[in-house]
Amino acid sequence: MNTTAAIHAMTLALNAAWEYQLLTFPNPAVGAVCLSDNGTVVSVGTHKRAGGPHAEVYALRDAYTLLSGDTTIAGCDDSHRIHDYLRTRHNGIFHTVSMAVTLEPCSHSGKTPSCALLIRDLGIKRVYISVKDPNPAAAGGASLLSDAGAECVFGIMEEEGEKLLEPFIRWQKSPFVFFKWAQRLDGTIDNGTISSQSSREHMHALRDRCDLIVIGGNTVRHDRPTLDARLVDGKAPDVLIYSQMGEFDQSIPLFSVPDRKVYVESSLERLKEYSLVMIEGGTSMFQASQNTCDWYLCYLAPKLGGGLQNMGPIQEDFEVLHAKITDNILLWMKKK
Amino acid sequence: MNTTAAIHAMTLALNAAWEYQLLTFPNPAVGAVCLSDNGTVVSVGTHKRAGGPHAEVYALRDAYTLLSGDTTIAGCDDSHRIHDYLRTRHNGIFHTVSMAVTLEPCSHSGKTPSCALLIRDLGIKRVYISVKDPNPAAAGGASLLSDAGAECVFGIMEEEGEKLLEPFIRWQKSPFVFFKWAQRLDGTIDNGTISSQSSREHMHALRDRCDLIVIGGNTVRHDRPTLDARLVDGKAPDVLIYSQMGEFDQSIPLFSVPDRKVYVESSLERLKEYSLVMIEGGTSMFQASQNTCDWYLCYLAPKLGGGLQNMGPIQEDFEVLHAKITDNILLWMKKK
Repeated sequence: MNTTAAIHAMTLALNAAWEYQLLTFPNPAVGAVCLSDNGTVVSVGTHKRAGGPHAEVYALRDAYTLLSGDTTIAGCDDSHRIHDYLRTRHNGIFHTVSMAVTLEPCSHSGKTPSCALLIRDLGIKRVYISVKDPNPAAAGGASLLSDAGAECVFGIMEEEGEKLLEPFIRWQKSPFVFFKWAQRLDGTIDNGTISSQSSREHMHALRDRCDLIVIGGNTVRHDRPTLDARLVDGKAPDVLIYSQMGEFDQSIPLFSVPDRKVYVESSLERLKEYSLVMIEGGTSMFQASQNTCDWYLCYLAPKLGGGLQNMGPIQEDFEVLHAKITDNILLWMKKK
Repeated sequence: MNTTAAIHAMTLALNAAWEYQLLTFPNPAVGAVCLSDNGTVVSVGTHKRAGGPHAEVYALRDAYTLLSGDTTIAGCDDSHRIHDYLRTRHNGIFHTVSMAVTLEPCSHSGKTPSCALLIRDLGIKRVYISVKDPNPAAAGGASLLSDAGAECVFGIMEEEGEKLLEPFIRWQKSPFVFFKWAQRLDGTIDNGTISSQSSREHMHALRDRCDLIVIGGNTVRHDRPTLDARLVDGKAPDVLIYSQMGEFDQSIPLFSVPDRKVYVESSLERLKEYSLVMIEGGTSMFQASQNTCDWYLCYLAPKLGGGLQNMGPIQEDFEVLHAKITDNILLWMKKK
């Protein structure tokens, strides 16, 4: 096995993890790949939702299914069942398998059993790891594996792994805050629905995971939004209306969503009480939150025309952290 | 082997081919993948330049290197040498290998030997093919393989394969024309260099392959461009300055490039004499060429601010055919 194969596998693992970036809150986004002894990719797994199977478990499940031909657990999403099944049925099939994981496999048993113990017990002899687990409760997976004779190779695409993990690191101490906007290719952000259905569903899935949405007072008055996650049957987060003027028409739909707190405040101090915060809006909200935002998420519709207003006069250089292309282009960015 | 594995492999083959879209002129962009018997990806190959090895040859070369451990031809770019070496040394290693190819393997021997004959002689038993070869001189590869007992499965991701092949189909009959522009995320297209170094190098590589560049008269007067391919040591294509007024300062650098024809004309009729045409410019050139362009290529810099003018008042909905993310975002599009 050469480094090229490990890097290729880690690239796949990172891309898989990005598909669920923020959606795994409060867990980190993680991707995992199983490799054959000559370095070819056998399976790719990704953590999708807190409480669900870890990335390693999905990758091991699919590698087992492919290599054994036994499809019993092929579609299974029950972490305990996959762990138990693999432990009793692996029959040495993993002895030639290596793994690439964006984050050190967890040592502890939480809502799901320990990944490191499973990897050890399946007899996997080599694990490529991008980033060491920064969570003391979950760390130690690598030494557990090393003690059992497995080789753990750290630092494969470490910089990319650290970027992937940034939100997770942040929300353990203070809120992770991202600014989201939708625009056309010509930069315009006004005049009707801009994003595709799949982009709006993704955005609702994010709302479902966030605990606070921040939005500008003018947008609330003008758009009269609901700010819920109805497209994915999700929960509606609390709302902070950022406004110097406190009076709002209470028939605006966002005020009638059950189990939601709505604040109308002229500062962003409230954010400190939350962990995952999405800021929605245009130019003025962008400017007001410029020192607060960790990341930026842009849904870009490949259209020219249809609007007038763009993000001017904002001046900002971004680094693209990850992009996803569907019928729209989804850009995860941070300031340079 | 299941269809999922074939689709995954074809996706990789398509993405690999897009890396060299238009750069293979006058050949088609083609990607190829070798798969092991359980469906894992062994190697990915792509055709890079007319006269160089075909995609299948690169994929077979790398599969051989990986599976045999023999690195003799690992870095070889000589098609004949790879063909000859594989034929004499394969030692049955390919009997469990399948392939996914975006275009039917060629049957004829041109600048390089026939891919279909090589695949047959290596004993490969299954080839997934996205699109049948539309070129009568090269077609027939699949029946040649079928006659030898190999299974050819057509139509895997056929729609995507046909999109990839569109320029090749077009330039065999009439010019393939694409409009290229660079913009910031806020849609602005003016005021200094917008694209990154790697984007400009890609654009110069395209210029090197094009036989004609079309540009508006105002851009020529204002930017005083050279319109060559110096960043990649490439050749400079002919230039058509699209202008109602025929007088230009002959000290503008584009007029002094050796071995170049420069036309100053008020119509686009001249395009019919060429095969691969890039139109560069802003709003007015976009509008003038709206009925002429097959595709659109946008280099998008992830920046806000720095310019004033965007593509307004153009109204256009695009389909994104392919996107590539580096420090810039490169979007291949066509009108919806």
